[in-house]
Amino acid sequence: MRQPVDLAHASRLINHGPTVLVTSAHTGRRNVMAAAWSMPVEFTPPRIAIVIDKHTWTSELVLASGQFAINLPGRALADATYAVGSVSGRDLAATPAAPDKFARYGLATFEGPVLGLPLVEGCVAWLECRLIREPHTQAAYDTCFAEVVSAQADARVFEHGHWSFRDDNAALHTLHHLGGGAFACASSAVQAKALP
Amino acid sequence: MRQPVDLAHASRLINHGPTVLVTSAHTGRRNVMAAAWSMPVEFTPPRIAIVIDKHTWTSELVLASGQFAINLPGRALADATYAVGSVSGRDLAATPAAPDKFARYGLATFEGPVLGLPLVEGCVAWLECRLIREPHTQAAYDTCFAEVVSAQADARVFEHGHWSFRDDNAALHTLHHLGGGAFACASSAVQAKALP
Repeated sequence: MRQPVDLAHASRLINHGPTVLVTSAHTGRRNVMAAAWSMPVEFTPPRIAIVIDKHTWTSELVLASGQFAINLPGRALADATYAVGSVSGRDLAATPAAPDKFARYGLATFEGPVLGLPLVEGCVAWLECRLIREPHTQAAYDTCFAEVVSAQADARVFEHGHWSFRDDNAALHTLHHLGGGAFACASSAVQAKALP
Repeated sequence: MRQPVDLAHASRLINHGPTVLVTSAHTGRRNVMAAAWSMPVEFTPPRIAIVIDKHTWTSELVLASGQFAINLPGRALADATYAVGSVSGRDLAATPAAPDKFARYGLATFEGPVLGLPLVEGCVAWLECRLIREPHTQAAYDTCFAEVVSAQADARVFEHGHWSFRDDNAALHTLHHLGGGAFACASSAVQAKALP
């Protein structure tokens, strides 16, 4: 049910603060980790900010390759999201049975359309991003800025440029980490009335 | 039901991506606007990033005063949140009946404990923030960094350092803007199981 999303609507995919999976790859090695802290910063061109701890292996791969992908897991991936946020991929290369976190947690991937990054099957939206190098904010705040160069979403939960969280697609609702492996789900949309 | 929140837990208040109200004041003028894009960037000291369009009146007040507050509205404030995000306060001073957006939309305030900023009654959490001046990221990405210097939350929905979104406190669930005045609410928490 993957569909391309107009880049003009790409910011809406993370506008509401979901926990995301960051995927990265460089010279044949690849990784996936969870990140709670990301946000859009501009609609056109679509630019985002994301906090990636400089001590993580993801940070190393992102800085070396200049790119990464943001994958939005739905409720059905809560356990895997918590797992890949709790374990470092740096040390797995020595274990041939599960040389990376994708293998260890059974996460299948497909190739991103613009940068060829590994995107996680079963997520509900995917953004490929080109890093905008900002050494000061990376060093001072672990904050990376990036431009979104491809966007896709699951048509069952994102249609006509908007999220549609309904009772009949609850397994696809986005996750919002509250701490300690507890996630709120985005659900039960409210439509604001215009005030005089 | 306001209670102080340990600054070590302050980041959890916006960890999950809620839409917030930014309040600001300078030389007797004050304003409130909605912002969809904010995130923590560090736990200790608690630091956050927030996108404030440089053309807004809020941006002017924040840059002049070096401080602002983040107020988290619950579901009951969805209409007011959308309203203060759609109208600029810059021009209201000329209308004596409602000289600012607080008056126009009936938003009562109380004084922040550290910086004395106007905080919005009826919200579910409040953070007072001191701006960390970063002219480049402010200019290039409208992104302001700040240190949180006080934190409070409504004990009915945030207790022991964690959000507690339950059926019996639905009016207090945080709002997450999807676009066009539609908000998802944070609800129905999921506890992830540890994977082997």
